[in-house]
Amino acid sequence: MKTVSENAAFGGVQGVYAHASDVTGCDMTFGLYLPPAAQAGPVPVLWYLSGLTCTHENAMTKAGAQGWAAEAGIALVFPDTSPRGDAVADDDAYDLGQGAGFYVDATEAPWAPHFGMWSYVSDELPQLVADAFPVDITRAGITGHSMGGHGALTLAMAHPGRYRSLSAFAPIAHPTQSDWGKKQLSAYLGDDPAAWDTHDATLMMRAKGFDGPVLIDQGSEDQFLDLLMPEALAEAMMARRQQGSFRMQKGYDHSYFFVSTFMRDHVRFHAEVLNA
Amino acid sequence: MKTVSENAAFGGVQGVYAHASDVTGCDMTFGLYLPPAAQAGPVPVLWYLSGLTCTHENAMTKAGAQGWAAEAGIALVFPDTSPRGDAVADDDAYDLGQGAGFYVDATEAPWAPHFGMWSYVSDELPQLVADAFPVDITRAGITGHSMGGHGALTLAMAHPGRYRSLSAFAPIAHPTQSDWGKKQLSAYLGDDPAAWDTHDATLMMRAKGFDGPVLIDQGSEDQFLDLLMPEALAEAMMARRQQGSFRMQKGYDHSYFFVSTFMRDHVRFHAEVLNA
Repeated sequence: MKTVSENAAFGGVQGVYAHASDVTGCDMTFGLYLPPAAQAGPVPVLWYLSGLTCTHENAMTKAGAQGWAAEAGIALVFPDTSPRGDAVADDDAYDLGQGAGFYVDATEAPWAPHFGMWSYVSDELPQLVADAFPVDITRAGITGHSMGGHGALTLAMAHPGRYRSLSAFAPIAHPTQSDWGKKQLSAYLGDDPAAWDTHDATLMMRAKGFDGPVLIDQGSEDQFLDLLMPEALAEAMMARRQQGSFRMQKGYDHSYFFVSTFMRDHVRFHAEVLNA
Repeated sequence: MKTVSENAAFGGVQGVYAHASDVTGCDMTFGLYLPPAAQAGPVPVLWYLSGLTCTHENAMTKAGAQGWAAEAGIALVFPDTSPRGDAVADDDAYDLGQGAGFYVDATEAPWAPHFGMWSYVSDELPQLVADAFPVDITRAGITGHSMGGHGALTLAMAHPGRYRSLSAFAPIAHPTQSDWGKKQLSAYLGDDPAAWDTHDATLMMRAKGFDGPVLIDQGSEDQFLDLLMPEALAEAMMARRQQGSFRMQKGYDHSYFFVSTFMRDHVRFHAEVLNA
């Protein structure tokens, strides 16, 4: 593993690291924030999954999470959103290929050789982080924004016991019924919708739910509400009697100004569970 | 004035606005954060001046100031760092011309027609903000990072009564003796160093000081310490018995991770004065 950069931040260290990934077959870059508490031993971790077009860097610089993580004594990991590089398949559209991994393990050409973000985020990267840093991956929460909210919700519900707390900012909530989903799931997983169900938060909420608290924030002025379909997930969540809150925040849009505004709530929400 | 964007943030609005500037002879863009308190009437304002290569946008997205400004009930203004456009002189170097206005009113060719950031930041933009928004520019503090810290310090000391509180993050503290300064002051103001004195925070601190509290933070691992020369300003500040604090923050570098870490302290420092 190679250290790309390390910056002091809120008494801890915001690092960026690169490594060769077996799962994606290319070099991957991720951000890791270690709070001051990590100097005394392993700390819990909050996974933050980013949205379409993002790299590991966007949330690391714009979401305002580090100060709250320092206060709470938890680490943050910011994975990339897809495999990268000249040898990796891509598409001219912003919402398919590099920068748009959709947190699935692709089975279809040309994506299958590299697009394994599902396994990368839930298996390979946690092991690598646990081996190299003072992070206790058994005390893990997961969150994300937009496509990353979709990833957080589906990964958490598909891996019972892997994450203790779950939240999302403006997630793509029902991708099997949305143009943010049908195109990508078809490309990565093929045309049989049976393969898609695990990757739809609304369907997963109906079928399995989450064994722990869930917090979801959505802006009422989000320019992508028709694609996100929050109403479907909220209905499924409440029909299931899922512990948690679905909050419609009046006036907020899809930007990082929305994410940063509610970041304190989310970090504290996870910390309350992870530090218990 | 044209609204470029407005995003809800921390209960207030992060706006970006563009306008034709008489002083710089080109269109200028700035960010303005209005806290929730502005809905009830004019609020105090903190001017944030950015560093080399920055636009109005960098600090607006990466400095993490809005949440603290919302809490404190003060507005934030993020001006650009220079005039912009094809008709505006420029230089291939990152530290001269567009993105590097150095907060002076240039007198020399080819810079004089547009490079009037001193007057723009201290006169034209405040009037424009006061006329168009619920901002009380008589209750103003000023801060900035690197080149912007230089601007904040020199503007505040040269305009007694204009600003009530003054702070800086890693300012260019003694530009008449630094390669971040000699080149630019010579280009913009000519080779007579007498014209430079107003634009050197250390010299201004020795000659005039500031009628109010001053807070300066500097990272001990800043990669530009030799260019910033904090020791000169600290010496001048304490020799003058200037009210305030000069803090050397162990382990921090020159990045926005440093700025965001100490932003809460700075916003609260200004708010205490401006809300008094």
